[in-house]
Amino acid sequence: CACVCVFGFEENWGSRLEVLRSAMVGGARSVRALLAAVRLQSGRGESIRAGRAAAAAGHAVWRRRSCCGVQVCANECAGPALGMATARDSARSARRLAQKLAMGAAALGSASMAAASVALCERASDAAEKEEREVRAGEVRDDLPTYALKDVAAHTSKEAGGIWVVYKRGVYDISEFIENHPGGAERIILAAGGSVEPFWSLYQQHYASFVHEILEELRIGNLSEADSDSLRSQQKETAVQAYLHEPARSDVLLVRSEKPFNAEPPPGLLVRSAITPIEHFYKRNHFPIPAPVQPEKYELEIALEQSSDLKHEPGATSPTRGAAHLSLERLRQYPKHSVTATLQCAGNRRTEMAQVRTVKGGAWDVSAIGTATWSGPRLADVLREEFGLTLESARQLGVKHVHFSGLDTDPATPSTHYAASVPVELALDPQNEAVLAYEMNGETLPLDHGFPLRAIIPGVVGARNVKWLESITLSATESNSHWQKLDYKGFAPNVDWDNVDYDAVPAIQELPVQSSICETFFLPAEEHSPRSIISRGFAWSGGGRGIIRVEVSADGGQTWHSAKISPPEQERNHVYAWTLWEASIPLSSDVAPGSDVDVVVKATDSSYNTQPESIAPIWNIRGVLNNAWHHVSVRV
Amino acid sequence: CACVCVFGFEENWGSRLEVLRSAMVGGARSVRALLAAVRLQSGRGESIRAGRAAAAAGHAVWRRRSCCGVQVCANECAGPALGMATARDSARSARRLAQKLAMGAAALGSASMAAASVALCERASDAAEKEEREVRAGEVRDDLPTYALKDVAAHTSKEAGGIWVVYKRGVYDISEFIENHPGGAERIILAAGGSVEPFWSLYQQHYASFVHEILEELRIGNLSEADSDSLRSQQKETAVQAYLHEPARSDVLLVRSEKPFNAEPPPGLLVRSAITPIEHFYKRNHFPIPAPVQPEKYELEIALEQSSDLKHEPGATSPTRGAAHLSLERLRQYPKHSVTATLQCAGNRRTEMAQVRTVKGGAWDVSAIGTATWSGPRLADVLREEFGLTLESARQLGVKHVHFSGLDTDPATPSTHYAASVPVELALDPQNEAVLAYEMNGETLPLDHGFPLRAIIPGVVGARNVKWLESITLSATESNSHWQKLDYKGFAPNVDWDNVDYDAVPAIQELPVQSSICETFFLPAEEHSPRSIISRGFAWSGGGRGIIRVEVSADGGQTWHSAKISPPEQERNHVYAWTLWEASIPLSSDVAPGSDVDVVVKATDSSYNTQPESIAPIWNIRGVLNNAWHHVSVRV
Repeated sequence: CACVCVFGFEENWGSRLEVLRSAMVGGARSVRALLAAVRLQSGRGESIRAGRAAAAAGHAVWRRRSCCGVQVCANECAGPALGMATARDSARSARRLAQKLAMGAAALGSASMAAASVALCERASDAAEKEEREVRAGEVRDDLPTYALKDVAAHTSKEAGGIWVVYKRGVYDISEFIENHPGGAERIILAAGGSVEPFWSLYQQHYASFVHEILEELRIGNLSEADSDSLRSQQKETAVQAYLHEPARSDVLLVRSEKPFNAEPPPGLLVRSAITPIEHFYKRNHFPIPAPVQPEKYELEIALEQSSDLKHEPGATSPTRGAAHLSLERLRQYPKHSVTATLQCAGNRRTEMAQVRTVKGGAWDVSAIGTATWSGPRLADVLREEFGLTLESARQLGVKHVHFSGLDTDPATPSTHYAASVPVELALDPQNEAVLAYEMNGETLPLDHGFPLRAIIPGVVGARNVKWLESITLSATESNSHWQKLDYKGFAPNVDWDNVDYDAVPAIQELPVQSSICETFFLPAEEHSPRSIISRGFAWSGGGRGIIRVEVSADGGQTWHSAKISPPEQERNHVYAWTLWEASIPLSSDVAPGSDVDVVVKATDSSYNTQPESIAPIWNIRGVLNNAWHHVSVRV
Repeated sequence: CACVCVFGFEENWGSRLEVLRSAMVGGARSVRALLAAVRLQSGRGESIRAGRAAAAAGHAVWRRRSCCGVQVCANECAGPALGMATARDSARSARRLAQKLAMGAAALGSASMAAASVALCERASDAAEKEEREVRAGEVRDDLPTYALKDVAAHTSKEAGGIWVVYKRGVYDISEFIENHPGGAERIILAAGGSVEPFWSLYQQHYASFVHEILEELRIGNLSEADSDSLRSQQKETAVQAYLHEPARSDVLLVRSEKPFNAEPPPGLLVRSAITPIEHFYKRNHFPIPAPVQPEKYELEIALEQSSDLKHEPGATSPTRGAAHLSLERLRQYPKHSVTATLQCAGNRRTEMAQVRTVKGGAWDVSAIGTATWSGPRLADVLREEFGLTLESARQLGVKHVHFSGLDTDPATPSTHYAASVPVELALDPQNEAVLAYEMNGETLPLDHGFPLRAIIPGVVGARNVKWLESITLSATESNSHWQKLDYKGFAPNVDWDNVDYDAVPAIQELPVQSSICETFFLPAEEHSPRSIISRGFAWSGGGRGIIRVEVSADGGQTWHSAKISPPEQERNHVYAWTLWEASIPLSSDVAPGSDVDVVVKATDSSYNTQPESIAPIWNIRGVLNNAWHHVSVRV
């Protein structure tokens, strides 16, 4: 008999099973038995592993991008895998694979398997057709006139006959739309008379299909091919000009993006030392490196936001109303405080999350994290001395957030500086160790890490530790920056680009408990020691919560072993540095030589929070906050 | 063909599968296909559900207490379930079930199924035999002399001819052992000349089988039957005397233990209001209610521990060296601070965890949690005013922990008071809202909740919020109490009574993110609304971390829906009260009427920590800290 195993967890898999079940005449009971097994599954990661195992064993495997898989195996079959599609493949390529599968089934002579394949093929065709119907903005439309770029450039206001923009080969009149732009009229107007593409590449909420639909409704024409080409080379030229100040970097880094520069070290390097050497510390720039300032000319501005939200009552202690300007020399006169703190990008381990379902954001393996000793004046000292601000006076005034703005700017809109904010307690609480760092690991702060000054808010996501610090603003409200309000937020797995509500969840500040395997290998049996799996890695948690336990499994999480941990010598709730760990697990005699062992790690922090088991339930559109158990496969 | 499905996750399931696989001749390939499915499983809860589903569908199901299950189903079989054992059943009852299963298989005429059953039966027999061989201390031994209780009572020192104790019918000479007692000689000596049982019932680490083995090696005789009976009735009498002060309690409470009194409300009551009415607030007493003090005679003692660990340097600010004694009147003169805080027992949801594997600890469903408004002086105010202690002077002195001791004592050893401690920052930080509460929900603190005074340390596990507060001690070290050092700790799943290291993990303070479904029901389709599942519950996290999102699933966690949340109006990182939530989920048309829907909830807190998916990976010997996704089954 033939049996069909369907795995996955998208909403409509139940109905697909129904199709398959009715198609499978000979193997109906096996299907039912397998259905029970399918229901036991917990996540996509496991489906992938099962799929790989099945493919390796010679079973046909088919998957489509909506995280579903179908495995068709005839009992008699020992043929090769007929096809595999990755999670990123389109419905069209899925259709091709289903067709291949049907042909393969026919070749194997399995009527029931062929019938199932045909049913799958039909479903994939439906999906592909739907995909083809989707509006894709910016393609050439023969029914519309063609404009030159200068025509577009002349339309930058309603008075000038309309506000036009370009997207790919499309020309659009957004005059009526701008007031309805969710990001505000003042932002969309920046693109008036030119291309929206430099903005869209940055502000990724535009990737929703409904955005393309809306845009296409405003379509008035095509951009000439010559001007489209020149626009493209002009954009490239701008980019070259913007990236003049990039420093030399270590060759060992795994570059995830050249412009802006994003890179991480190979994971094995991370566990070499508790303090990450500067050259191996991950680099995460949002924009080109700004032109290096001359240290003697540098000034940090600190100002109270001019806002009616801040109280001016006679009773309230009144800090400096004007702006303070601090030279580096002035900052160096403060007591130098050193804090050893781990920084982690919110998107660390995004590549794994993207395997569950497509996300928008740059690729990161497990090493967008590092630990350094940061030195400079305490932020609380500077704000108190220079600005009269204490936790008490901040409360009276209504100051609730501290904004940081960097010297780095968007090449497409040079007025857009990278910026973010943290709640005022993190900056002013004398217990917090926030510093304005001019040193990293005892050296002058390097260009890639924010020379000459960056904010270090220990325990908080990397994105708030603003580099190339230009100004600090004390405010009643959070920063309005894109990275505070429209990015670096963790949405629920059921939220997609078409239904995202940015105000529904808070900006990421403290990060959840995390751990990863950085290196692992198989140790063959020796005279007095059995076969074993050695593994090493890091564990860390936000908010100064130290790591109290790390467990490692060599059987995919069925049984666990306590790792030896090396926690930093930092006080409770001030444990800002990571904990490196090492585990040696004797292999069960059940494990056959040549097989792959699934090594897994999970950590527990001092509030006894633990990591989630699988990625699917924490999946989110931006691919941030992936702190699921980390798996690495080792051949023994 | 017949197929065998084995599910579970105990360490040796691999070898059991091997037995089954070799036994199954006809259905070998199906077994292999199912093995892959087995590997995908994540937890016991799911095994149970699968087992139930299989049983309902007419398949034979067999389980043993070690969390493993074996499902034997012949393709042709449509007979009734042959037997089901719960997780708590013994190997002996498992053997009986395997025998039944083998007979059933024979009746069905399935040779391969019968062979498998016989193999299972053999394994169950082995386990049962091992169970029977286990040393159980205190049974009558015919080879030893019989003693009267007065003989035992005469042996309380080496000088008196030895130190004897009684356990059940056994008499033991512990003279040589006491120095090796892991809990210290000064504790075991308390039982000299009498029974160890009152102590063992409290200090549950004695439940390890090696403890019985060690004890039995010290065996010298039997206690006479008459004296054993009188000892037992005397213990009962002592208990009656000790429990004279218990107050009247609501009849709606689900009583988990009468003496000491432990009870929780039905979950549905919890979501009726953001503030839990006193009569419905869970009661968790470790000992009898102490004799009520007369308010005008009550005194709270605050003292600095007399210890060489505390610095006495001239430079250090020196708080009061003697003890301060505060009347209730004095405490009432302080500004009254009210904090609305959720308290949760570390063992909440223990009953679920015990289904994975046996734990030691009292049963709790999901309602050992409640939210109240607690009023009294801030602990920081009292310590500063009465004792000269601030965060600064505490640092200089080396005070790192604040101990709380209650008026409640162990009836077996009246010198043992319930006691616990918290890190000094939680008590002294002006940002923390710890209070010495004399009111609960605006009423005088009730007897069950600590009249006349209790410590409330918001965001911290219930066990540290000491009731019937008698004294506060400022110390360089943690409390040495049993509940700080040997209990209320969260061990790894691989730690059992035989290898537990109490010093390896810290005492529980802040609790991890939690949520539960308190009520859920099916709403049939109406004119304009589809069939749906309505559910309500709570979500909470320790350390003042508020809840930012709650997701609910009506398909076991495959797809999620955002719940409507009602967070309390408390400031960031001071969100000490829970968040009630409600969700309405339209049912997929796939769900057949009459079937059971698996409703699941998970919450995310402000540090973006989430709940673990299943219980097995967080299982621990004491059954504490169960914050896995909460499932409730609803028939539609």
